[in-house]
Amino acid sequence: MHDTLRINGQRLISRLERLGEIGALPGGGCCRLALTEEDRQGRELVISWMYELGLQVSSDAMGNVFGLRPGTEDSPPVMTGSHIDTVRTGGIYDGNLGVLGGLEVIETLNEAGIVTRRPLCVAFFTNEEGARFAPDMMGSLVYVGGMSLDDALATKGIDGQRVGDCLEQIGARGSEPVGNPDVHAYVELHIEQGPVLEESSITIGAVEKVQGISWQEFCFTGTSNHAGTTPMRLRHDAGYAAMATGSFVRELANRIGGDQVGTVGALQMEPNLVNVVANQASLTVDLRNTDNDRLKQAEAELLDFIERLAEREGIEVQHRTLARFDPVPFDTDMIDCVEASAKAFGHSVMRMPSGAGHDAQMLARVCPTAMIFVPSVDGISHNINEYTAPEDLEAGTNVLLRVLLDLAG
Amino acid sequence: MHDTLRINGQRLISRLERLGEIGALPGGGCCRLALTEEDRQGRELVISWMYELGLQVSSDAMGNVFGLRPGTEDSPPVMTGSHIDTVRTGGIYDGNLGVLGGLEVIETLNEAGIVTRRPLCVAFFTNEEGARFAPDMMGSLVYVGGMSLDDALATKGIDGQRVGDCLEQIGARGSEPVGNPDVHAYVELHIEQGPVLEESSITIGAVEKVQGISWQEFCFTGTSNHAGTTPMRLRHDAGYAAMATGSFVRELANRIGGDQVGTVGALQMEPNLVNVVANQASLTVDLRNTDNDRLKQAEAELLDFIERLAEREGIEVQHRTLARFDPVPFDTDMIDCVEASAKAFGHSVMRMPSGAGHDAQMLARVCPTAMIFVPSVDGISHNINEYTAPEDLEAGTNVLLRVLLDLAG
Repeated sequence: MHDTLRINGQRLISRLERLGEIGALPGGGCCRLALTEEDRQGRELVISWMYELGLQVSSDAMGNVFGLRPGTEDSPPVMTGSHIDTVRTGGIYDGNLGVLGGLEVIETLNEAGIVTRRPLCVAFFTNEEGARFAPDMMGSLVYVGGMSLDDALATKGIDGQRVGDCLEQIGARGSEPVGNPDVHAYVELHIEQGPVLEESSITIGAVEKVQGISWQEFCFTGTSNHAGTTPMRLRHDAGYAAMATGSFVRELANRIGGDQVGTVGALQMEPNLVNVVANQASLTVDLRNTDNDRLKQAEAELLDFIERLAEREGIEVQHRTLARFDPVPFDTDMIDCVEASAKAFGHSVMRMPSGAGHDAQMLARVCPTAMIFVPSVDGISHNINEYTAPEDLEAGTNVLLRVLLDLAG
Repeated sequence: MHDTLRINGQRLISRLERLGEIGALPGGGCCRLALTEEDRQGRELVISWMYELGLQVSSDAMGNVFGLRPGTEDSPPVMTGSHIDTVRTGGIYDGNLGVLGGLEVIETLNEAGIVTRRPLCVAFFTNEEGARFAPDMMGSLVYVGGMSLDDALATKGIDGQRVGDCLEQIGARGSEPVGNPDVHAYVELHIEQGPVLEESSITIGAVEKVQGISWQEFCFTGTSNHAGTTPMRLRHDAGYAAMATGSFVRELANRIGGDQVGTVGALQMEPNLVNVVANQASLTVDLRNTDNDRLKQAEAELLDFIERLAEREGIEVQHRTLARFDPVPFDTDMIDCVEASAKAFGHSVMRMPSGAGHDAQMLARVCPTAMIFVPSVDGISHNINEYTAPEDLEAGTNVLLRVLLDLAG
């Protein structure tokens, strides 16, 4: 039907750069934490673009914003979008691409005079990053009914301020109840934030699922001893237990294989002196898998290892779950559609999981959902050096165009 | 000759407790950092006891103090002693026992009217702990000529003050040149500061040597990555490298066996976040052995492991030696004398290395030297819970009495 239709890559990049000026950091990248003055300015700019493109703009009590383009029939829209808040040292692509890619599709359709059967909707959700207010993906979580509006509004941030007050302060609290509009399907364009596409020289990722996440904290308590006078056999070394756990996590992830990853990113030892055996050591373990059974297996093996280790070393261990999310599978037909659209443009494409969390995983609770990934140079994100090549931005947005046309008829 | 002679255990303990009141901490233990006001008061008290016992008191330009008891002949004295400075959260036995045990021997000889052939000398050396001024064992190091007086006096402490100024301020700078008096032999009574004697239910340690010490620091630089989006095979995880090194050090120490110990007491990761692969990690490795060849072997194996690890993981490593001391063997005849003296009293005795540094290892450079260890409950030292049972303090001091009588004739 519209096989020759293409988005305008330069126009897309201009919008990304213009939005990136708000909260721009001296060395590059930007800082637009959720519900700050910078976020207010970013929202104002994106909403002004929505109006310019003729969209019907609404926002809900959680500050989620929706730009609707009517179709020939009055039915729930096909939605695309993401978020425009960033982490403290963020890039200009994470989240923003999904929103501005959606606007670029709208402008392309406007120019071509194409009206879809179903309405289209470009959305951005409040506080996806969670860098100021936990949990992350808060706006989309409330939108799908996974968290009450009251709980979200009462959430205090790292600066002690409440979400509800901040929404009021920046004038972002909308008049619509949360959960509107109803949505027919959701597709989100996003940078990969990892190195897989680049390493495989592939342009488009058809995201099949979001990894399940298990965050745990272990605190070992042993005995502080002199590093010179205490024979190895008489030690109760909390630091050794923590380091041995770190080595085990690597071995475990490699052994389970597939999508399994395992990371010990944080570790503290006490008293942390060169010549004192540590009496306290705590560490975090981040385990992820797209297969929940394997994730549970990894968790069980880790616990078993630590219990045997603690008994052998004569040390106490305390255990706390910091976060646990099951994997989220996306819709098979939607994934097929992303893959077919990429191939139609002659782009290389691979099915892959998402290692990071996205608003799409919340939307998947209420409608058929999928995601389109484009490569991140060096896999870098949440960093001022985050970068995706112009041709990849353009390729991903063309795929988004085609998927939206396909879904909206 | 004097087989029925015994020291007075209660008198010894009274002095230990009285000295422990100076710098006493609220929860027990005491803080008498070198060359502070508390150190001044401690010195004043111990010197007053020396005068009470009729000793000829002198002090050198480094603040080392000597209490001489003349013999029937005018020859270099047999010396005993230790130090009276403590760490910030020290006990009342570490160091103090060696000095006050020496005074108790003098008082016992005074009461019995015994005059030895060679003079006896009870000494305490400045800044053994090194808790305020590095290096530790500074006073005895200067005394044996291992560090120039000028360098020592110019040393700045953790509070920015210089040793020389502090010596002046507390009136501890003596009139004697360093290196006086000449010494015939040196024996030092000390708490073990480790768990070996207690674990073996043995009362007296005849110390054969002081362990060689190797302190090294390794800094790994990898790449910071997202813990969810970065497959295991694409990681350059500095934190993993540090933790794997910690596991290796344990394996290495166990494999080499004997006196070998190995400790990773300090480790830092950057950015130290649950969901970020660490791009920086540094750790210290403390290796000790009484056999220098084995210590060198341990160092070589560690370096080899780390170089292969860094290459395999694709990370950079920087390496720095923080300290390196060869093992110090004590005098065979002196060790035999300690062992025989313990047996003469019916005490259980074992030959053992010292895992910690002591003034005796400096004196060993200039005269025949040995040490007598008594048990530390739970191996605890440098801690307000440091404790040695009264009967063990008494046993050790009786052995000191006998060794001194044997050496002084």
